Amino acid sequence: MINQEHYKATIEYDGTDFYGFQIQPGVRTVQSELETVLSTLQGGAPVRARGAGRTDRGVHATGQVVDFHLYWQKHEAALQRSMNALLPEDVVVHALSRVPAEFHSRYDALSRTYQYTLYNAPYRHPLLRRSTLYVPFPLDEAAMDEGVRQLHGEHDFAAFGRATTDSENTVRTMISCRVWREGALVKVELQATGFLFRMVRSIVGCLLLIGRSEQLPAWMEELLVSGNRQLAATVIPPTGLCLIDVHYPHLQTPLS
Amino acid sequence: MINQEHYKATIEYDGTDFYGFQIQPGVRTVQSELETVLSTLQGGAPVRARGAGRTDRGVHATGQVVDFHLYWQKHEAALQRSMNALLPEDVVVHALSRVPAEFHSRYDALSRTYQYTLYNAPYRHPLLRRSTLYVPFPLDEAAMDEGVRQLHGEHDFAAFGRATTDSENTVRTMISCRVWREGALVKVELQATGFLFRMVRSIVGCLLLIGRSEQLPAWMEELLVSGNRQLAATVIPPTGLCLIDVHYPHLQTPLS
Repeated sequence: MINQEHYKATIEYDGTDFYGFQIQPGVRTVQSELETVLSTLQGGAPVRARGAGRTDRGVHATGQVVDFHLYWQKHEAALQRSMNALLPEDVVVHALSRVPAEFHSRYDALSRTYQYTLYNAPYRHPLLRRSTLYVPFPLDEAAMDEGVRQLHGEHDFAAFGRATTDSENTVRTMISCRVWREGALVKVELQATGFLFRMVRSIVGCLLLIGRSEQLPAWMEELLVSGNRQLAATVIPPTGLCLIDVHYPHLQTPLS
Repeated sequence: MINQEHYKATIEYDGTDFYGFQIQPGVRTVQSELETVLSTLQGGAPVRARGAGRTDRGVHATGQVVDFHLYWQKHEAALQRSMNALLPEDVVVHALSRVPAEFHSRYDALSRTYQYTLYNAPYRHPLLRRSTLYVPFPLDEAAMDEGVRQLHGEHDFAAFGRATTDSENTVRTMISCRVWREGALVKVELQATGFLFRMVRSIVGCLLLIGRSEQLPAWMEELLVSGNRQLAATVIPPTGLCLIDVHYPHLQTPLS
């Protein structure tokens, strides 16, 4: 008789062809692909794979974290290889380890880091069209950086998104936020204790107006103070958005 | 009455969803997409768009060159914008200019440069799966570079491909050839006066055997001398291959 163990996996996916992370009837999601593979490796018994962030349709991840319980008698490395052999080509497990039974990928996360990549050049770049948002007008990344830094610290982010349940408040702590350019790529990186529904895409939408000089950097603070979602810019598409990291307190390795 | 002018366009495409550059009945090709758009811009009259390199199914380009004759009464910049507005999202025109009537994108090309990108890491990278070939075993890029440099100069490349017509010979001049690493990416770049059918994919297939120490770098010269395609490694997939540049003698701008 083998014991059920608890595992934490760091996964990457190309979100283009998924209806988001979370399982939903009738559509292809990352969670359902993972759970199907894990169930196969356990002789067909159902397995629940909990994710740290419920990324929306079309959003990518290079550092999503999931946890699950599984009956598996071989080493973790063999489990990772088996999962990667069965998963479709747009999902992969980058790292896998055993964790204490009480670990919860979502509730234990101290913060999450998202990156949004803009492709800023006179013409489209077909080979980057699935992982960036194309922006043809010139962007002033220094103004965007000045704007995003207004969001640093603890604030009510109601202007930039809504809570996923009515009982949840809209106060979050922005731990770090910056904008920089790498050639034709302009990158926005946000690390916060949590994110409201579509918050990153709303923030980057506002930063685009600052980047093309339609708003001043101080507008970000005005929006924060207003708490009014009607004033913020439209939510932009998910193509450039990627969950790159989830941060946890130091985990103790369970005794073997 | 407007005059027909001759244009040269530099185009980029994601080859994943194309059956290659060249027009073929019943399938989606880059040439057919271009010709459809150009015909639309000329009121429906057919237009021929000649390409410098007939890239195979699945091969990408960032620097393919095409030339065509068109009745167009506005400036080149307006033509480029109109083409990009009508082209599908996996093709774009990067540059466009008028050229002398006698210019021929294929016959006037002095050389072409191809790049093949390998993704060399323990696990797959879903977001790069369309533009690289995933190679899980460690590659010795210094040995690969030593191997590819044996191909420098004028040689009969019969061991690495075949001519596309019976009358054509298999002698080509390799102008530059090198292999280098950028993190997990290993890049192979070849510039030659011309390439035989599937030549780059055959050369890189052989370099992979050198990179994993199954063959010595000097094997490339042995293959060249043998002229025997049976001895060379299997042709590898097109995913990592990209036509990045086509080189011409200095072009005179036609008088306006």
